[in-house]
Amino acid sequence: MSGQAAEFSRENLENVLKRRFFFAPSFEIYGGVSGLYDYGPPGCAFQANIVDTWRKHFILEEDMLEVDTTMLTPYEVLKTSGHVDKFSDWMCRDLKSGEIFRADHLVEEVLESRLKGDKEARGLVKDANADAQEDADKKKRKKKVKEIKAVKLDDEVVAEYENVLAQIDGYSGEQLGELMVKYDIKNPVTNEPLEAPKAFNLMFETAIGPSGQLKGYLRPETAQGQFLNFNKLLDFNNLKMPFASAAIGKSFRNEISPRSGLLRVREFLMAEIEHYVDPNDKKHENFADIKDVKLRFLPKDVQQAGSTEPVEKTVGEAVASGMVDNETLGYFIARIYQFLIKIGVDENRLRFRQHMANEMAHYAADCWDAELHTSYGWIECVGCADRSAYDLTVHANKTKEKLVVRQKLDEPVSVTQYEIDLEKKKFGPKFRKDAPVVEKFLVGQSQDELIKMKEQLDKDGKVTFKVPELEGEVELDTTFIKIEQRTHTEHVREYTPNVIEPSFGIGRIIYAIFEHRFWTRAESTDRGVLSFPPAVAPTKVLLVPLSNNEELLPITKNISRILRKEQIPFKVDDSGASIGKRYARNDELGTPFGITIDFESVKDGSVTLRERDSTKQVRGDLKEIIKAIKEITYEGVSWAEGTKNLTPFESNAEDQE
Amino acid sequence: MSGQAAEFSRENLENVLKRRFFFAPSFEIYGGVSGLYDYGPPGCAFQANIVDTWRKHFILEEDMLEVDTTMLTPYEVLKTSGHVDKFSDWMCRDLKSGEIFRADHLVEEVLESRLKGDKEARGLVKDANADAQEDADKKKRKKKVKEIKAVKLDDEVVAEYENVLAQIDGYSGEQLGELMVKYDIKNPVTNEPLEAPKAFNLMFETAIGPSGQLKGYLRPETAQGQFLNFNKLLDFNNLKMPFASAAIGKSFRNEISPRSGLLRVREFLMAEIEHYVDPNDKKHENFADIKDVKLRFLPKDVQQAGSTEPVEKTVGEAVASGMVDNETLGYFIARIYQFLIKIGVDENRLRFRQHMANEMAHYAADCWDAELHTSYGWIECVGCADRSAYDLTVHANKTKEKLVVRQKLDEPVSVTQYEIDLEKKKFGPKFRKDAPVVEKFLVGQSQDELIKMKEQLDKDGKVTFKVPELEGEVELDTTFIKIEQRTHTEHVREYTPNVIEPSFGIGRIIYAIFEHRFWTRAESTDRGVLSFPPAVAPTKVLLVPLSNNEELLPITKNISRILRKEQIPFKVDDSGASIGKRYARNDELGTPFGITIDFESVKDGSVTLRERDSTKQVRGDLKEIIKAIKEITYEGVSWAEGTKNLTPFESNAEDQE
Repeated sequence: MSGQAAEFSRENLENVLKRRFFFAPSFEIYGGVSGLYDYGPPGCAFQANIVDTWRKHFILEEDMLEVDTTMLTPYEVLKTSGHVDKFSDWMCRDLKSGEIFRADHLVEEVLESRLKGDKEARGLVKDANADAQEDADKKKRKKKVKEIKAVKLDDEVVAEYENVLAQIDGYSGEQLGELMVKYDIKNPVTNEPLEAPKAFNLMFETAIGPSGQLKGYLRPETAQGQFLNFNKLLDFNNLKMPFASAAIGKSFRNEISPRSGLLRVREFLMAEIEHYVDPNDKKHENFADIKDVKLRFLPKDVQQAGSTEPVEKTVGEAVASGMVDNETLGYFIARIYQFLIKIGVDENRLRFRQHMANEMAHYAADCWDAELHTSYGWIECVGCADRSAYDLTVHANKTKEKLVVRQKLDEPVSVTQYEIDLEKKKFGPKFRKDAPVVEKFLVGQSQDELIKMKEQLDKDGKVTFKVPELEGEVELDTTFIKIEQRTHTEHVREYTPNVIEPSFGIGRIIYAIFEHRFWTRAESTDRGVLSFPPAVAPTKVLLVPLSNNEELLPITKNISRILRKEQIPFKVDDSGASIGKRYARNDELGTPFGITIDFESVKDGSVTLRERDSTKQVRGDLKEIIKAIKEITYEGVSWAEGTKNLTPFESNAEDQE
Repeated sequence: MSGQAAEFSRENLENVLKRRFFFAPSFEIYGGVSGLYDYGPPGCAFQANIVDTWRKHFILEEDMLEVDTTMLTPYEVLKTSGHVDKFSDWMCRDLKSGEIFRADHLVEEVLESRLKGDKEARGLVKDANADAQEDADKKKRKKKVKEIKAVKLDDEVVAEYENVLAQIDGYSGEQLGELMVKYDIKNPVTNEPLEAPKAFNLMFETAIGPSGQLKGYLRPETAQGQFLNFNKLLDFNNLKMPFASAAIGKSFRNEISPRSGLLRVREFLMAEIEHYVDPNDKKHENFADIKDVKLRFLPKDVQQAGSTEPVEKTVGEAVASGMVDNETLGYFIARIYQFLIKIGVDENRLRFRQHMANEMAHYAADCWDAELHTSYGWIECVGCADRSAYDLTVHANKTKEKLVVRQKLDEPVSVTQYEIDLEKKKFGPKFRKDAPVVEKFLVGQSQDELIKMKEQLDKDGKVTFKVPELEGEVELDTTFIKIEQRTHTEHVREYTPNVIEPSFGIGRIIYAIFEHRFWTRAESTDRGVLSFPPAVAPTKVLLVPLSNNEELLPITKNISRILRKEQIPFKVDDSGASIGKRYARNDELGTPFGITIDFESVKDGSVTLRERDSTKQVRGDLKEIIKAIKEITYEGVSWAEGTKNLTPFESNAEDQE
């Protein structure tokens, strides 16, 4: 299939996907809402099969603990996780027209168009506008810049623009604002000035309950719901470490201006794993099983050197050399690869790209994206990050609920640390109802904070600090608190596990597979085929009675009954269309097998089996045919092997019009 | 199992469900949000198995077209469907404290407490407060009325209150307001007056996109997403009728004050079928398959007569007598019954209750709920309604997009109707850019509307009307339009299909099954068992090595590998607990089988198989044991039949502490 890439036409593919109702814009008869799509029957079945494969490949095979947590999430949780403050894009508004632009996209497009205009002025392209239009069509972008002027730029300006464009994903809102002022970027159509970039939070907001006072969001990821249940999950796992939880469900992202079809949508299906591991021991017990898997890596140093040439290595080598941070991360990278190949990703169009330091969250230890190549470029489809202990720590700090593992030590250890003693009976009279708040605050101080307090106490005999829940500062002297360094013998080690998180965007993977598996027969570009692996194909069999003749009715019904009993998903096509047309429709739906019923079938019960990709046919008894279908679909047997006892069959049905 | 009902303790069940993390309040470490729950690993697996069974029972067996549509839904769609105006409960606010009450619940509770106070005053109960508390505990309600006063009421007041309570579900907001004035119902704690009841819409509202101007909601049902795709689905089905679409997904309902655990929640999983049928022919081709299924019906006339005694009838009889409106409705009622029994509902605690006229939406032709009995009373778990052509009609009227079926007629028919002719070249000059809007409006007029227009035209020579999209009125004379009655021969019949809608609340069904399948062993009320049918049990097998002895490790690993390969969901319990304790834990999780590995196993590969409900054990070769597990779990074979070739085995493991 990969050999077909050169002939690929996105337009052809999109026509097939639309005609066969794989998916369609939601609310289309109401004019649609951008970034929202519905899956029709084949898309929905394909998605269900991929989810089912995911569940078997990860949850069942690795004995993970699946949970189903709510999408509605209260403000407090997402404030703590950092999403309220940081999960945003930069937008700027034209105050006159009310039009809203995504700042980084606008800067990018304006500078690109100026560079194009410069090229035209230099005589390097003939028509910059036509050129830009073609580019926009390719990327399916609605162009903000409607007209490009052929204006020559100074050489150093060209260099500056190119430098900005190379870093466009890394700018803060303030920096984007400065660029807009420096390069005089305004509304490209009206030339009206724009407001400075403001953060637009990408979460959908709502109110829970009738008072309207409990603010909530639709979750941006399933991860937080898993973290909050950590203690229950550890308990369910009989306190054994390491272990993983998993969740499959919809998440939401209120994009400023969605584009690129299924690749950037506002409501999407995710499948996420949170693997909890001892920070001191990130080995994986099954690492040996996958260490020889060879992958294409694009590590950060290669990217920093300006190259996109991947490095081929086994996972074992990648971990041994330190390129991939640890065994567990490497293990999941290999398992992600195996999953993607199983469901139909073209392995020549898959790479693992490491995040650069400025892309990665500050707490992440390492992060690799499985990227799939499509006509939109390389697309991040699975993230695989080491989130360290960040999430469990912030939720524990906020709720004062410990989210830790207690490990009995074989050998007791002696631990030296700073401890704070409170003279509790003095707190009541001084702080009255606020006393517990102050006490809780002091007990929750970290080692670093205690050291600072101790220094101040030693120096001034008192310490002042701010308790978030209270107004003003609190001052305490040594009659209230005492801080000392002490040494204890401990028999239990208490630690916050680190989290390795493989996170799958199912819709993006589905779209990439559409592109990887679509090709057209040499005879005609009208004859598209979606060569899904049988195990994930939406239906497995098309049942085709040769004609509408009544004689064929009973046997068609009977074979339907048998296929249903065998739980093989199938469709009957008894429309009046020619066999050839029906096969063609079937190829577009990606159905791997066709069973043709003819007058011979009525006599001796034999039927014809057709294979979608090769259009090869064999003939035999229905029972044998079903056996072949099952082996090829569910046991990974090849067509040649699965049909070796059946009789090859020649037909000219393919050519029928 | 049904024999256990008398001993049922909800407290015991809830302890088990909590301890084994079937479900838990969401965000519990943040204090929780009422009406939101997370499913832990066993609850999640149970839910996934029920959904899988549903998919096979309905979608695959009946060849339905599954779709996956978005939860985010724009205002316009839900305005048209009637949800913006009518999907609400009545709430009233205490302006002083800000407390909010659900009006019908408040009236109910206040009148009930007065009746209780009356009973105490008459000496019929000893302590009305204690009595009410017990009642509230049973129903898990937070009581609004904190104290009941022993005040005797007039006999006619008692009768009036009882009459109101009998109809409490049927009052409008205005009527509830009148009742509150008439019976002087205020905030029961502070005695402050309350605002008149206001409609509180139960949909969660949000804004789509950055401008905040596109108002949207989280869908209250999956149905609308299916209706909007009707044309695409009909097309996908090669224009054949009847057919059904189906969707499985989360829906939302912003309850005023959620209660009753999993039975009334704000975010819930639904599985809905929309079966499209010719309004003139609601026969079902497979009706004969189910016509002898005998069910407990509670029809509306029985309810009107004040009885709750169900009528036992076959579905065939129910449809023949006209009690159930049509074959298709009857067919689905029987199929719902078969599904519920398959997944573990106790058939003695299932009834089909018909909606009374005042409960039913005005457009519905008939509606039956599958109700399951629980300790909270009879609970609606599946609705099965004939929605007529309502939804498709309102969306078609609103969008001017036809949502109809075109049926080629065997015999042409002659149709007489009013038709409108537009003198198009005069519309442009008069209306300029609005001309298409006016033309579209006129062409979309119904027969009734055309008749009225014609009368006006004949009388005045002109007609005035309002076009919703335009300001002011439009006036046209006979030089612009002509309306005539004409007769045509038609070869095609065009009709809007009716919709039969079976709609499943998966969470409610799950909770009812928990109650129906929970019992405790005679030996001890601490030994709870959840007797799920093997096919839907969260895991199928618990693998129990007799001890932690290292000799048992390799065979445990090997059997795990084999079970994984056979795709039998299992868990290993190699904790140090006694065999008896491990079995007990397993019974609480509803795992139907236990495989015990002992030192004999190491020698000859034989293992012991334990059945959860009977605690019976058999011994045999692993291969034979796996065969038995598969037959019992997936092929509906009984324990006795499935294990007849294995050796009965006696053990005292059950009693081990």
